[in-house]
Amino acid sequence: MFLVKIRMQFAAAHRLARPDWTDEQNYALYGKCANVNGHGHNYVLEVAVAGDVDPETGMVVNFYDLQKVVEHEIFEKVDHRNLNADVDFLQGIVPTAENLAKRFWEVLEPHIRQGRLYSVTVAEGQSNIATYFGPQPQQVVF
Amino acid sequence: MFLVKIRMQFAAAHRLARPDWTDEQNYALYGKCANVNGHGHNYVLEVAVAGDVDPETGMVVNFYDLQKVVEHEIFEKVDHRNLNADVDFLQGIVPTAENLAKRFWEVLEPHIRQGRLYSVTVAEGQSNIATYFGPQPQQVVF
Amino acid sequence: MFLVKIRMQFAAAHRLARPDWTDEQNYALYGKCANVNGHGHNYVLEVAVAGDVDPETGMVVNFYDLQKVVEHEIFEKVDHRNLNADVDFLQGIVPTAENLAKRFWEVLEPHIRQGRLYSVTVAEGQSNIATYFGPQPQQVVF
Amino acid sequence: MFLVKIRMQFAAAHRLARPDWTDEQNYALYGKCANVNGHGHNYVLEVAVAGDVDPETGMVVNFYDLQKVVEHEIFEKVDHRNLNADVDFLQGIVPTAENLAKRFWEVLEPHIRQGRLYSVTVAEGQSNIATYFGPQPQQVVF
Amino acid sequence: MFLVKIRMQFAAAHRLARPDWTDEQNYALYGKCANVNGHGHNYVLEVAVAGDVDPETGMVVNFYDLQKVVEHEIFEKVDHRNLNADVDFLQGIVPTAENLAKRFWEVLEPHIRQGRLYSVTVAEGQSNIATYFGPQPQQVVF
Amino acid sequence: MFLVKIRMQFAAAHRLARPDWTDEQNYALYGKCANVNGHGHNYVLEVAVAGDVDPETGMVVNFYDLQKVVEHEIFEKVDHRNLNADVDFLQGIVPTAENLAKRFWEVLEPHIRQGRLYSVTVAEGQSNIATYFGPQPQQVVF
Repeated sequence: MFLVKIRMQFAAAHRLARPDWTDEQNYALYGKCANVNGHGHNYVLEVAVAGDVDPETGMVVNFYDLQKVVEHEIFEKVDHRNLNADVDFLQGIVPTAENLAKRFWEVLEPHIRQGRLYSVTVAEGQSNIATYFGPQPQQVVF
Repeated sequence: MFLVKIRMQFAAAHRLARPDWTDEQNYALYGKCANVNGHGHNYVLEVAVAGDVDPETGMVVNFYDLQKVVEHEIFEKVDHRNLNADVDFLQGIVPTAENLAKRFWEVLEPHIRQGRLYSVTVAEGQSNIATYFGPQPQQVVF
Repeated sequence: MFLVKIRMQFAAAHRLARPDWTDEQNYALYGKCANVNGHGHNYVLEVAVAGDVDPETGMVVNFYDLQKVVEHEIFEKVDHRNLNADVDFLQGIVPTAENLAKRFWEVLEPHIRQGRLYSVTVAEGQSNIATYFGPQPQQVVF
Repeated sequence: MFLVKIRMQFAAAHRLARPDWTDEQNYALYGKCANVNGHGHNYVLEVAVAGDVDPETGMVVNFYDLQKVVEHEIFEKVDHRNLNADVDFLQGIVPTAENLAKRFWEVLEPHIRQGRLYSVTVAEGQSNIATYFGPQPQQVVF
Repeated sequence: MFLVKIRMQFAAAHRLARPDWTDEQNYALYGKCANVNGHGHNYVLEVAVAGDVDPETGMVVNFYDLQKVVEHEIFEKVDHRNLNADVDFLQGIVPTAENLAKRFWEVLEPHIRQGRLYSVTVAEGQSNIATYFGPQPQQVVF
Repeated sequence: MFLVKIRMQFAAAHRLARPDWTDEQNYALYGKCANVNGHGHNYVLEVAVAGDVDPETGMVVNFYDLQKVVEHEIFEKVDHRNLNADVDFLQGIVPTAENLAKRFWEVLEPHIRQGRLYSVTVAEGQSNIATYFGPQPQQVVF
């Protein structure tokens, strides 16, 4: 019963606003995060994989393989980008930390071949943190 | 199945000692934390809320609303204070990290209106960390 | 001979690009920082003031007064904003870390009334850091 | 329902390689971590204990007692050592983060007398993190 | 031309207030730091020593020797103490970060036998930082 | 008058010991750092360049160019290596933090073409930090 986690940072701009709402409505809900020209963060991304250790290798999943997947599928597409405008798989959603975590999960999950994806965490700076644990209630054993 | 977390710091003094014990008894149990003139920490407080994302807003709970609740109910009452002497809702308890986490939960819980309070974590510096998960065994699904 | 420093974070979007250059020229120089829709950071801002300690108060400058100045003059104008579009005193410059440090200095300097402004540091995340020490060569004695 | 955690750092060298494999096989699996002369890390070690608070002391377990156990059983044996060559209880295993967490659990578990050992986390730097939750599926109630 | 620095943390309570002033005067100057029951911090202490490297040892000063001096002269006297009441060499001063840095310098300086003491830095948490560079203007060559 | 700094981490093993000394002599001087099988760190490397801002680009030196130089000249040669055995330009020296900073300076200096190299800092973990300011006394103007 192991959990392995990798962590990386990326820098991106975002704006929290529904396109079908007025600026007033968006400011009322999202506050300064609705600023029309966007703002940005050094996001921290954590990807956790649960599983057993392969007794031959001593690993649940090779950290470097996992890093390569996350770099290729997520990091290269979001780093130094505008999350509202530049990222295909984020079109049509408001880029809250929760929605980012959920979409990142959906993008990553098919690529996790050792262990099973356990959670995706997106932190906007050091104070605001969102974790998604997947679409199906999991009976957790730890 | 999301967990959102906010994190903030506060500075406070505390002394670990039971008023009904002698100084010797308190030193024997609490060590240097029983120093009669108190000592202090930059505490880190983390509050986690579990829930589903509102598809309209893309949020479990508005980070700023949650921050405002924690600032108003906890931060303003403990920051730059003496936890043994200055805080109404801490009267009568020894301000260990565990007891702080439990009392903060009890103070915060009635104010969490979106999602449900999942845990309260109190860290004394970076080495000692206590988390309280509430009074009732929860059948966690993630 | 004292140096006192305050540190705070702000989140902002920026794009590195000269408006009088083509996108190709901007990409050639600024790389992924020239992405046309911008990107963002959790910037760290440090402001250092040099001086002697007032023997009456034991302070070079009141940390809270200094914080209030920096919050009012800088933080409130740049936090959750787009540094290319939203900030009056950044119009007409490319918002590199160096240029931000220099403009912040120029904005803050007239408001420092105890001690003298020694340096302004702007960090884009944890890896890239720029410090400005003011317009005039200072003969430093420490 | 509390979780208390202590965190400490140690510096150690390791090499990821199976002695029964060729260097080529080891490089193919472990990449640069198989470098024949080893490399090193400032490992972060976290030990979590679950339990209830003793109403008399306000603690699940005394942080200092827990720290003393971890220092004596783990820290003193691994700090500034070579994990492949110098540590008795690591003989015969490849010192991956997962294997370290598991072996540390097995060493620590008999010494935890208040609460029950919940997890052992070993981080190689800030990017690669492994957590072991013990040999038996635990029905967690929080 | 080298600078070597060690860094450690200690936890302490303090109150900013002049004993010869009224509470009103103290609150007016020191704000919430004047709270009558004190508050506390996890202070960070940095001690920097300048000098040349001994070609035989490759060191300006042995980090462990320097750490032992700072632990013995400062850490053991201030950790988990009340800086207003418990520390001999802090009697009669207001324990601002500036005054702490200055007093720590005066205590440490006679014990630095390799290299020369260059600066003492005291940080209250991560936002407020004070550095003292000694009583005499030094003509710095780096 | 600007200083720009880049910061990166690398993992490496080292042993502090003079080959011409006995183990006893080495232990007497270097303590646990003389452990015969080595130990390791996540080193933090900071490289600072001083200069003026090019008014056309708003930069002292392009952060990415500087990063590429440091990655190519230092990082790729030391990361996940044994500093005693694996690195050409460290042969014949005891790999103390001071000696590493000095040798890194000597390797990097010819490659800094914009601005001038100001300092190289090597930190072993978060507690022990060494900075080298170059071979010649510099009259610093800030």
